[in-house]
Amino acid sequence: MSRFLDRCLQKTDAYTPGEQPRDKQYIKLNTNESPYPPAPEVINAVNAEDLGSLRLYSDPTCKVLKEKLSALYGVKPQNVFVSNGSDDILNFAFYAFGRENGAVFPDITYGFYSVFAQLHGVEYSEIPLKDDFTVDYKDYLGINKFIAIANPNAPTGISLPVWQIEEIVKTNPDNVVLIDEAYVDFGGESCYKLTEKYDNLLVVRTFSKSRCLAGGRLGYAFGCEELIADIEKIKYSTNPYNINRLTLKLGEATVDNDGYYMEKCGEIIKTRAFTKAALENEGFTVLNSDTNFLFAKSNRISGEKLYLELKNRGILIRHFSKERIKDFNRITIGAPEEMELFIKAVKEILYGEKK
Amino acid sequence: MSRFLDRCLQKTDAYTPGEQPRDKQYIKLNTNESPYPPAPEVINAVNAEDLGSLRLYSDPTCKVLKEKLSALYGVKPQNVFVSNGSDDILNFAFYAFGRENGAVFPDITYGFYSVFAQLHGVEYSEIPLKDDFTVDYKDYLGINKFIAIANPNAPTGISLPVWQIEEIVKTNPDNVVLIDEAYVDFGGESCYKLTEKYDNLLVVRTFSKSRCLAGGRLGYAFGCEELIADIEKIKYSTNPYNINRLTLKLGEATVDNDGYYMEKCGEIIKTRAFTKAALENEGFTVLNSDTNFLFAKSNRISGEKLYLELKNRGILIRHFSKERIKDFNRITIGAPEEMELFIKAVKEILYGEKK
Repeated sequence: MSRFLDRCLQKTDAYTPGEQPRDKQYIKLNTNESPYPPAPEVINAVNAEDLGSLRLYSDPTCKVLKEKLSALYGVKPQNVFVSNGSDDILNFAFYAFGRENGAVFPDITYGFYSVFAQLHGVEYSEIPLKDDFTVDYKDYLGINKFIAIANPNAPTGISLPVWQIEEIVKTNPDNVVLIDEAYVDFGGESCYKLTEKYDNLLVVRTFSKSRCLAGGRLGYAFGCEELIADIEKIKYSTNPYNINRLTLKLGEATVDNDGYYMEKCGEIIKTRAFTKAALENEGFTVLNSDTNFLFAKSNRISGEKLYLELKNRGILIRHFSKERIKDFNRITIGAPEEMELFIKAVKEILYGEKK
Repeated sequence: MSRFLDRCLQKTDAYTPGEQPRDKQYIKLNTNESPYPPAPEVINAVNAEDLGSLRLYSDPTCKVLKEKLSALYGVKPQNVFVSNGSDDILNFAFYAFGRENGAVFPDITYGFYSVFAQLHGVEYSEIPLKDDFTVDYKDYLGINKFIAIANPNAPTGISLPVWQIEEIVKTNPDNVVLIDEAYVDFGGESCYKLTEKYDNLLVVRTFSKSRCLAGGRLGYAFGCEELIADIEKIKYSTNPYNINRLTLKLGEATVDNDGYYMEKCGEIIKTRAFTKAALENEGFTVLNSDTNFLFAKSNRISGEKLYLELKNRGILIRHFSKERIKDFNRITIGAPEEMELFIKAVKEILYGEKK
């Protein structure tokens, strides 16, 4: 840290992304990436002419991509925002809507919410999940603060029904409610249609998980026209061309090939069921997941030990040191053959190499 | 605007990027893009395997790109920061270093500086350029605020010598001096080596101009290790994966092919000399430029009228409404044939279609 850094920022603890060790080839079940490549039409969407055109700026209005998203989801283009990954949008939202009244979010959720709050000097409190790791929607009724809820939640994988989200939105009319639907395509119920009815609801989505495009950096959001205009203003006041030309083109082709991605989501849901059953068979407690990961703990081995033993065997999962969840691990659903190797490694760790 | 937007942001006027009209094909001399495509090796650097790997996140540490930049410029990797365009870095710097003591920059400079300052609640004052549109470095000595200077300056094109930058840096030891070298490769003198000597100097660069990669979104900065760690912290607290996988690969290939880009800079400098002479021949006042654009006014036609007449003829240049420079226009140096068409159109406008 330099002696020049703003005092507010000195106190911020930056987010820790999932590790990306390069010492060997790992089976990566630690950052909730898709095991499947983008659709063939997406891979073919970028040609030499596009690469030559990189000398030109991208379209800051993202007109074509917005039109395609609005057609797919049945909303107007002015109800759609797109940006450089959903983290970017979450950051804008905390900055735009969190500072005046403060913010609340669950104690166990996406670790970035507290980072955004600290960075922007947003006063925040964390509302504990219930003992079963579910969000109690009644905790958020009429709370009069900016609310951020990941639905389904991470790293638990558990989702809230839309009627409970609606109660939260309805009883907090003077604050923005942000619903982070990064994982919604793996079994959750989306609330984005409520943005037509409530002017205080912002629904944030990403191409990183169900759209197999984590490395492309593309996120989007739905909201009423005024709310979208607010975050557009922040984008235009920080980095108007923040999505590069190739990603715009890849994103457009992704929307055009939605069927491929919905099929892959179905496959991941099947692999998740297999993995959950296999873990439960070995005595694990596995939370019900509507996402592309499982949150699980063993009755025979600590979360940290299991994480380290798997890493030794070339398999990465995500361990969190937070006291309440330190016995759990978050396991991304990979390809079926990866999950079979994972289960095999877990058994070896639990019962010894010989079994 | 929604009724939820933070009061500080309500007052911010967003930056206005150069227009990108789509009604017809224009000769684009309005956003300082390169007329040349990226090097062939850069265009060939992205293959189908890279596109398939987009399912995976990019390397948030940008290790390879940083190593290549540090080798090219003879600094250590920990003295290099890379991010999603230089606007991103400027934004981080205003946030990190501007809020405590306030900021100063020239009255005529990159229009984004005042936007960043407003957005982040940074108190700022604008120091008028001298009558000849040069920066008087003496205005910035011992001023005890965060200082942002584009060198060469935009939209004037005029640069300061490094010894004057050093005086500014040396006499403001308790504040960060940001030198924005977006255009330095077209004839300016870089001060980046001074970052080895002064811990308060941050030098910001971009791949958008001399590296023909405006649509790729890639910026970088040089500074002492602690200063770089500060802006890394903001990146890790907002959007750690903010550079996509393809751009990282394109950026690496760009650094590997520096010769191509230096050659193209030489060609642009030649075309600039031709264009300047031709405009002066028609009675224009043209400032001395060390950039890939010219800043010029006619003694026969207003800046706005010339801009509009050229737009009617399918040629876009950049007009600014600010009182002090409203008779000028900023003209990007395009390919030689584009500049010949531009000069031809200017003559038609000045002397009538028949000439």
